[in-house]
Formats: sequence, structure tokens, C-alpha cells
Amino acid sequence: MTLDAALSAADRGLDAALERLFALLRIPSISTDPVYHADCVKAADWLVDELTGLGFAASRRDTPGKPMVVARHEAPGPKMLFYGHYDVQPVDPLELWDRKPFDPAVEDTAAGKVIRARGAADDKGQMMTFVEAMRAWKAATGALPGNLVLLFEGEEESGSPSLIPFLEAHREELAADIAFVCDTGMFDTDTPSITTMLRGLLAVEFAVKGPSRDLHSGLFGGPAMNPNRVLAKILSQLHDGDGRVTIPGFYDGVTPVPEEIAAGWRALDFDAAAFLGEVGLSVPAGEQGFSVLEQVWARPTAEINGMWGGYTGAGFKTVLPARASAKVSFRLVGTQDPIAIRDAFRAWIEARLPEDFELEFVSRDGAPATVMPTGRPEFARARAALSAEWPNPAVFAGGGGSIPIVGRFREILGVDSVLIGFGLDDDGIHSPNEKYSLRSFHKGIRSWVRVLDAVRAG
Amino acid sequence: MTLDAALSAADRGLDAALERLFALLRIPSISTDPVYHADCVKAADWLVDELTGLGFAASRRDTPGKPMVVARHEAPGPKMLFYGHYDVQPVDPLELWDRKPFDPAVEDTAAGKVIRARGAADDKGQMMTFVEAMRAWKAATGALPGNLVLLFEGEEESGSPSLIPFLEAHREELAADIAFVCDTGMFDTDTPSITTMLRGLLAVEFAVKGPSRDLHSGLFGGPAMNPNRVLAKILSQLHDGDGRVTIPGFYDGVTPVPEEIAAGWRALDFDAAAFLGEVGLSVPAGEQGFSVLEQVWARPTAEINGMWGGYTGAGFKTVLPARASAKVSFRLVGTQDPIAIRDAFRAWIEARLPEDFELEFVSRDGAPATVMPTGRPEFARARAALSAEWPNPAVFAGGGGSIPIVGRFREILGVDSVLIGFGLDDDGIHSPNEKYSLRSFHKGIRSWVRVLDAVRAG
Repeated sequence: MTLDAALSAADRGLDAALERLFALLRIPSISTDPVYHADCVKAADWLVDELTGLGFAASRRDTPGKPMVVARHEAPGPKMLFYGHYDVQPVDPLELWDRKPFDPAVEDTAAGKVIRARGAADDKGQMMTFVEAMRAWKAATGALPGNLVLLFEGEEESGSPSLIPFLEAHREELAADIAFVCDTGMFDTDTPSITTMLRGLLAVEFAVKGPSRDLHSGLFGGPAMNPNRVLAKILSQLHDGDGRVTIPGFYDGVTPVPEEIAAGWRALDFDAAAFLGEVGLSVPAGEQGFSVLEQVWARPTAEINGMWGGYTGAGFKTVLPARASAKVSFRLVGTQDPIAIRDAFRAWIEARLPEDFELEFVSRDGAPATVMPTGRPEFARARAALSAEWPNPAVFAGGGGSIPIVGRFREILGVDSVLIGFGLDDDGIHSPNEKYSLRSFHKGIRSWVRVLDAVRAG
Repeated sequence: MTLDAALSAADRGLDAALERLFALLRIPSISTDPVYHADCVKAADWLVDELTGLGFAASRRDTPGKPMVVARHEAPGPKMLFYGHYDVQPVDPLELWDRKPFDPAVEDTAAGKVIRARGAADDKGQMMTFVEAMRAWKAATGALPGNLVLLFEGEEESGSPSLIPFLEAHREELAADIAFVCDTGMFDTDTPSITTMLRGLLAVEFAVKGPSRDLHSGLFGGPAMNPNRVLAKILSQLHDGDGRVTIPGFYDGVTPVPEEIAAGWRALDFDAAAFLGEVGLSVPAGEQGFSVLEQVWARPTAEINGMWGGYTGAGFKTVLPARASAKVSFRLVGTQDPIAIRDAFRAWIEARLPEDFELEFVSRDGAPATVMPTGRPEFARARAALSAEWPNPAVFAGGGGSIPIVGRFREILGVDSVLIGFGLDDDGIHSPNEKYSLRSFHKGIRSWVRVLDAVRAG
């Protein structure tokens, strides 16, 4: 059987696959920091070389930002589009890493072997499960597994500014019958998951500016309003006592989870105490009246991702700064409109500024939430394929993260996406000591072999 | 006349005095940052060389922190102790400087010539007015002006950790009849000032720690409590709607300004709108019911000197940080007890922490406020000397800053201090583009020549 042969090839090739992943993980392709631009290009070139070697027609496509990598293999059958991203998050605070973030290694842990590096889980390790599954298929059969187009981008962690124009300019090349995205997680270590709802995202950076220059707190402390004090006061009002966001109109478009989906979630028997306990917390901070699972999968949020003002170095400096800043992001659900929320947030801040303060405000358009068409046959086939690989049957899950590509594929290419990933809650993506379970990498490759086998025939 | 000859010598020597000050300003003696330790030692050595050249018995006295510089000249008459500090504040944010902070120059401005450099006003320029006055005196008379001991420290900007043990170990050498401190300001550009009240200082740094690691806001946003949110909420409660500090017991020991002093302040005709307008503000932020002058000179404050948490670099990172931090300093008046306030602040924060959060808390003992014994004859003599130099008569003023040395001199050496300085409100000490008026430097030197003449005879 082709399937068994391809799975065996995946098993035999695991060590070599790891070596290839390590080579990619060694490239510090941080897309949010211009210092690493050349490394992003290097990562794209590395992927082009790998995919060309596998028999794809692969090329680097430069954009005003980071390059796209596109690889095609034409064959009979339904056209399948595969999406991943080769860029990674920044690594600060560096001092909290136990090893250098771009010096990958397999480490033994209490929970088994893990691949430790920035990008191991998000998203290089996940993206390479596609590539290695296709390699295993080819090793077993002599040919790539069907009608394939791969799109790997390098701006996912910085808001994908080049993505829309690129999709619009390459509609025909990229349009497919179905898309697969590998940038999500397992429900738990034994239960694979297809993510069928995703929250949207709006990210805003702002600064409150008061005094025309930094002031000495001895000379001006008291009569001069301190921007740190203004910022703290504004940010403290973002949530009410019940954990609800206080911006007027914020909840417009937020709808309850349909009962049939909610019932499925209840059946998952999600362990909220373990979920929070794993990160050292015990008291849910989200909206009262909703379960932890609903808070993550189905409710919108406002989070202060960063704030800073004044002197933050060693020792003390008795300064009143001229400005204080914050980065705030919103996770959106239902039909919440990122543009309307951006404007409402701006007005909400302005209404809270002291008379002689000014606001600096920078935002991106953001992306609304998405709900997948789970009635399509690919969902059932993929679910069965995953259930064959893992100890427990696959579940349809919500997802707290935001993967704007899914909406873009639908709007621009007319393609629906199946989101399958093998990340775990404790992978520490966006955090120090990011890891990807070696089991996720291995069984992830095997899972894609199975999904390809189930879907390629159409 | 000796006085006139010494004043003429000061005038003639101004250019050379500037060159010497520039040499000192070129040394980046930032005491709060260990990177600059060698530069602090270099500044101390430079002072020892200068003072030795002037005929003092001068030496560098190493401490566990930055060295002290002590210079003595024994002569008949009352023993006068002079205090200044050669260390300077950090220079960040560097990008707001119009020239390199340690590349001093005289610049023409709308308000006249200024010496531009970090430390020009705080305190190298002020400290050197002592030294240059003594040099002018010696140039005119062939001898130093009396029974002198100079103490220049290098830890003033970092809380003077070595000062108390040093004073205790050198009581006899440093004990004097009167001390002069040059680290304060003019009342306005034409009105010299003797500062007779100083606020105390307590500085605290703390962090609120929640999740055991940084979290992804997509995976955990909602149920996981964000330390930035906790910190903003705590800091927002530090002041009530009337600008009063809300920590229980904070106002214990705060007494009204005595009516005779308050009357003197009212007579100063202080222009609050101009004071705030100069730094781009219009609405006083301090306690309601007190004038701006009272807010700065006679009321205690709590200021957030720095706060930070999460991602603060370029672009966006959708992180929930594991911790968020703040530096808060308090200016104290009357008999407010820094130890009691430190403990009350700690308890006040702890009462506001979520159940599964922890507090990290670091403080220094701080220093209480001080009130000078203005009945001593040196105050009247110095006031007359200053009034002879400047367009307007000298005033007795309050001071919003904190100069703990004054309390230490009283407690450990039994010496009272006369605080005279020539800084202006717009000097930008602790800020980018710090400057010291060339007029302050020149007339400051002349002022000390006059004060020495008035006080040296006892």
C-alpha cells in the first residue's frame, strides 16, 4: 500500500528531516526587526532550494517586504494549496532563554523529547511537516502526492503587509480547491484538532504625550502631569470589574456560540484548572459568565502586549518622561469590525486625555474573525485521517489565535482552509525557550501523509 | 580690595575655566550604570589633579562604590565644607539629544549663551563654580580663601550608598563650622536663591509577576491575567481624583507651611502659568487646594518614574508578559518617615495583587525632608553677598528636589548647610539637551567669591 510505504519512509527519514529543520531554525528570520531582513531572504532561499530539490517548480518572489516562496507541482486531481510561514517572533527577553534561540537541539524533558529553538513550533517545525510528508510520499512512490501549490510567507509575525497584493496578483496560480494551513495546535497531547473558528486581530500602538521634554521629579513632581500616570489610568479602564472591555460598541457583532458547537465544546471536558495551572495561574481573568474555553475560543479580548515610559534601566532616575506608550491588541469574534473598533478605541483614549496632552496613534486594519465551512468533505476526510494517526479521535475546535490568511484565501482566492496543526499549549510560542515536541514533528509528518492520501483523490 | 581683585580674576579667567569644565564634562561619569565605572574613577582623578594643582591636599578616596574626592586647605578662621557631585544622570533617550551628551559646547540660544552637555548643570558646572572661585581668589591674593575642605562625591545620582559610612569614618576631617552645597537653582534668571527647605526622597522599584512565562495572547488572552493590566490598575490608584496619594498613612507628618514662610512665598509672585507653560503644560496636576509653588516646595508626591512590561520594540508582538515593572519615587516633606511609607506602599500594592500574582519589591531607605536653620549668621551674609552680584535681592526659597547630603551633614557631622545654586528651571537636568547658562557659570563663580569673602572671616 502506498500509504504504509509513505508512512515507513517518514519514519526512516526522521533524523534527516530533523537535520533539515535545524538548518532552517538556525536562520534568525525575525520579520518584525529590520536588522534581520537578510536572514528572512536567506530562509526563503533555503526553502526554494529544498523544494526545487524535491521536484517542485519553486521560486522566491520578492515583495516590498519579505519574499514569498511559491512551489508548484501540477498533476491530475484536486489542487491543494499549503500555507506556512518561515518568519519568527523576536527573541527578547534573551536572558530568559536556557540556550541560544537560533541554536536548535533536541532536548529530553519530563514530557518527552522536544526540539528547542525560536520558530520550532511557530511555524518552521509545523511548516516542515508538509514538506517532509511530501518527501516521504515521493520516497515511497517516486512522485509527489498530487496537484500541489505551496505558499510560504515571511511576514506572518509582522501583519502580512505584502500578502493581499500578492494574492491579488497571483490569483490564478494560487487558486485551489482546498487550502491546508499548519499553524495551529492539538487539543491535547493525544487528541488532534481541526480548528474551525478563529478570532480576528487588531493591533494598535499609541503614546500619550504631555510635557515638552523629560522633567526632573524634584523640580516638577506635583504640578506637572506625568504621562506614566495618564497611561496607567487609561489602560486601567480598558476592562471593567467583570473583565469586559469598556470601549463603546466593542461588543457589536459578538454573537453567542451556536448551541450545537457549544455542546461539542462541553463534551471535550476541557480542564481549565490544568490549562491555567500549566502557566502558574489559577483565577480566570476573562469575562465573568463564560468558561475558560469560551473565553479563549469565542470571546473577544483586549490585551496590553507592551507598555513603557520613563526610565527602565538599572538603578533609579527621578524623571517625569515626556511620553508614555502602549501596544494593545484585540482578538475579535463574530462580525466585530476591526476598523470600527480601531476608531472607537482612538476616541475612547482621546476622551481620557488631560487637556494639555496629545495622542499618537498607529494601527493596522486588522482582520475579522473567521468560521470554516465544516460541511465540506475535506473536513471529514482529514478528521478521519488524523484519528487514524493519534490515540484519540480528532476534534473540531475553536481557536483563540488569529490567522488572517484564512480570510484572505476565502476573499481573494475563493478557497476554504482546513487548519491542522500539532502545537501544544506549553510550546511557548512567542516566548523564551520555544519548543516543538519531537512527537508532534514526527506524527505531524505522518498525519500529513495520511491527509494527503485521503484528500488527493478528490 | 581683595574682593574686587578676585572678581576681576574670575572675569579674566572665564575662558580657561570653561576649558577646564569642558574637560570634566567630556568624562561620561554615569554612576547608575556599571558600564561607566571607570569613567567615574577618571572624573575623580581629574578633580584630584585640579585641586592638587590649586594647592589643596587632595586625594581620591575609594569606596565600595564610586570614589570620593576630598581636598583640604588649613588656615585660620571658620572651617567651611563644600559639597558637589561629579557623577551625572544617564543620557537616554539618546536620540532626543541635538548633540552628543559628552561633547560639550557653548551654544547661542534665544536666552543667551549656554553650556550644553550632560552634567553641565547637574552638577559639574555648579560644582566647578566653587573651584573656580577659589582659583580666582588665589590668583588675586596668592592664597586660597580660608580654612577649606571640599567633598565631591560620585554617587549622588544613584542614592549615595557609600556616603554614610564615609562620613562616619571621616568625622573629624570633614566636620566644619558650616557647609555650602551647590546643587540647587535660581528663583528666576535675575533672582538668586538660598534653598531653606528640601523635600525628602524614597525610591522603590517593584514588579508584579503572574504567569510563569510569557504567553501568546491568542492562546491565553482572556483567561490569563496580564501583568501589564495588573500594573496599570495598581498605578492608576496611586492618586485620587484630587491628586492626593492614596497610600494609608502617607500624609502622616505632613504639616502646613508656617504662615511667615507662606507669606514670603506669596510675595515672590511666582508665575505658575509660565512655569508649566515652559514645559508645554497648562493644568496643574498636584493636590487640589494648593498653589503650584506649594505643590513643588511643600507637598509630598508620588511619581511613576518608569514603567515597563511586555514587548516594547518595533512592530507588534502579541504577548502577555510574565511580569511588569515600575519605578516609583516619593518626595517627602515635614516629618514623613521614608521607612514607614516604604512599608505602607508595599502593603498597599500587595492588597491589590490578584490571588495568583507575586510581588518583587526593592527600595532604598530614602531620606526625610530637611529645613535649614536660617537664623544662623551665614545665611544673612550669603544672602547679602548674592544680592550684591545679581540684579535682584536673593530670596529664601523652598525646593522640590531632595539633597540627602544636607540631612547627613547635620546628623553625622553636626554641620548645617547653606544651599546656593545657579541652575534655571529650563536647564533640563535629567533630560536630553541638559544645559547650564554661561551667565550662571560666570556669575556663579563671582557669587562664590563674594560669599567666601563674606563668610571666611567668621
